[in-house]
Amino acid sequence: MPSEGGDSKFSPLPPNSVIGVLGGGQLGRMLALAAARLGLRTHVFAPEEFCPAADAVSRRTIASYTDEKALAAFAQAVDVVTYEFENVPAETVTLLESFGARVAPGAKALAVAQDRLVEKDFVNSIGARTAPYFAVDDIASLEEGLKKIGRPAILKTRRLGYDGKGQTTIGEDATDLGLTWEEAKKKAWAEIGAQPSILEGFIDFACEVSVIGARARNGDIALYDPPQNKHRGGILRTSTVPASVRPETVAEAQGIAALMLEKLDYVGVMGVEFFALENGSLLVNEFAPRVHNSGHWTLDACACSQFEQHVRAVAGWPLGDPARHSDAVMENLIGDEAEGWRDLAKMPQLAVHLYGKGEPRPGRKMGHVTQVKRRA
Amino acid sequence: MPSEGGDSKFSPLPPNSVIGVLGGGQLGRMLALAAARLGLRTHVFAPEEFCPAADAVSRRTIASYTDEKALAAFAQAVDVVTYEFENVPAETVTLLESFGARVAPGAKALAVAQDRLVEKDFVNSIGARTAPYFAVDDIASLEEGLKKIGRPAILKTRRLGYDGKGQTTIGEDATDLGLTWEEAKKKAWAEIGAQPSILEGFIDFACEVSVIGARARNGDIALYDPPQNKHRGGILRTSTVPASVRPETVAEAQGIAALMLEKLDYVGVMGVEFFALENGSLLVNEFAPRVHNSGHWTLDACACSQFEQHVRAVAGWPLGDPARHSDAVMENLIGDEAEGWRDLAKMPQLAVHLYGKGEPRPGRKMGHVTQVKRRA
Repeated sequence: MPSEGGDSKFSPLPPNSVIGVLGGGQLGRMLALAAARLGLRTHVFAPEEFCPAADAVSRRTIASYTDEKALAAFAQAVDVVTYEFENVPAETVTLLESFGARVAPGAKALAVAQDRLVEKDFVNSIGARTAPYFAVDDIASLEEGLKKIGRPAILKTRRLGYDGKGQTTIGEDATDLGLTWEEAKKKAWAEIGAQPSILEGFIDFACEVSVIGARARNGDIALYDPPQNKHRGGILRTSTVPASVRPETVAEAQGIAALMLEKLDYVGVMGVEFFALENGSLLVNEFAPRVHNSGHWTLDACACSQFEQHVRAVAGWPLGDPARHSDAVMENLIGDEAEGWRDLAKMPQLAVHLYGKGEPRPGRKMGHVTQVKRRA
Repeated sequence: MPSEGGDSKFSPLPPNSVIGVLGGGQLGRMLALAAARLGLRTHVFAPEEFCPAADAVSRRTIASYTDEKALAAFAQAVDVVTYEFENVPAETVTLLESFGARVAPGAKALAVAQDRLVEKDFVNSIGARTAPYFAVDDIASLEEGLKKIGRPAILKTRRLGYDGKGQTTIGEDATDLGLTWEEAKKKAWAEIGAQPSILEGFIDFACEVSVIGARARNGDIALYDPPQNKHRGGILRTSTVPASVRPETVAEAQGIAALMLEKLDYVGVMGVEFFALENGSLLVNEFAPRVHNSGHWTLDACACSQFEQHVRAVAGWPLGDPARHSDAVMENLIGDEAEGWRDLAKMPQLAVHLYGKGEPRPGRKMGHVTQVKRRA
């Protein structure tokens, strides 16, 4: 029976219920640890034999996301299904639902998040703003987009991009590369795989902030204080709370995130990234329908972390208090940075988190540390 | 090769090493969750098919603590062995060591902690004080003890007591029970199973505090702020940090705990319970060679919890910073109190922990909650 105003008829899952999680990365691992704290079990479904979540879960299914038989068994074995990555195939969710599984966040949020064009259209449709963008389907529309948006600009695939992958920059001056303009356009189009894309204008922002927000089955919303984020090479490096923005900017960012949660009839935690401009106004960069790297500080600076919050939401529990008890700076450990664990472990008030990954490949998120500070 | 001044030759176990844990209760569960946070795996050895730790560990052995074959395989499968309960059979540790396992805390601490008489002798031998006590081996020595210590007094078995079990009170007036003195003594002796015991004098204390302390392989010591503890029916109800005692009392309690850690050549976390008298002086009640219920608040009020601290110590890592970032009140959820999880989950700044136990039997610790408060 479809419910009105969210899924308020969903009874809270009692302790010892099983949360099914699609994906076995570090986010799945931290979700499993948070669920265990609440007395809930997790069952991770992922194709990899070895994955970070494997060490922390009650049960695992190792199978492809399109393995119907495995999905049917998984749907039967769990009380609710969620996911830890935004590129879950729509087909997987459809199959799970056909087998009776309740999947949260729902198909709508996933569909919007998986396509940069749909995502930006959605954000603008609810009255929030994004960078200027233009749909690119071929060299001709790229040409048209560059005329409209100007240079420099970023060409991004509509689908399957993360951590700076699936995108390329088109500079102000093609001759920097020793190319003609025609060659530069062809090169960019080839670089992103000649697939449906969007061209985005460059934003001259003062800083980046994000809001980690959650919506419960009954429509309640909880919003964490926005961290200020620094990226390098497309990968998040640090998140600092509080952000050095004005209270009105915090309120506006939280208001936009709340509106997005409502309009998507969302259940779970969402991460919304913003560009804060010098004049104080905000543009939505993108959102992730899952727990978010820029919310890892909540593990050590809040009574209820984003991971517990997500588990609470999908399990139909009341949301936890998102207020922070401490200020925090979270720093990712990327590639061989995690090799420094011996020294990191000695630092005062530094919470060390390692993800149980094997090889420290360049760009791979191996762990993070959070400096906990007395709240100012 | 025996090392001098602790096991300083022990190399820190790198991420993905395996911590073997004897015992699968809630303490084992929380140790496993803390180990996972550091990128370490856990392998729990326990006889129960279903146990709280089962949901959170990488691997399990379900076998008796005296199953030689299972212990041999366990010793091979793990990089270090620790335990979550103080009544680990000495034979188990001997067997594990014979199979090459490194067990921490060591056999000495375990032997002292397992016998109330040896424990009290130890405490007094290092210059700390206990309640008056007297070894009781029969009715005659009980008689002698009562003469020396006076009434009321508590008769406790030397071994295998916890949470108020294995003890009985001998009141000031036997006629309250309608018994003669001779009958009252016989009854008490029968109640504790007519086994080697000690008679302890009643202490008129102002409050109970405890110190959760850790000692690393290199001899470093870290001490948490002592909580003030309230018991009911022999079971811990609440731990409050900071305790309402004077700074000198805090320093003295921490000093005694540090001395105990050193004198036992201890590796890992220890919980030491004290009676604080009206005049400010301290008596040691008992110690537990493991993480301790009165240290659960550290999960939510410290960057490094007692569970992580124990894992760090036994894994040869540097100890974490024990300073608290917040004040806290921890309350145990006993028996059907955990049924209130829906309401507890709604409380601001209340961290909810449930242990994944099945039936809420009276007196059974089902979970705990910690109220996190801004540090005064």
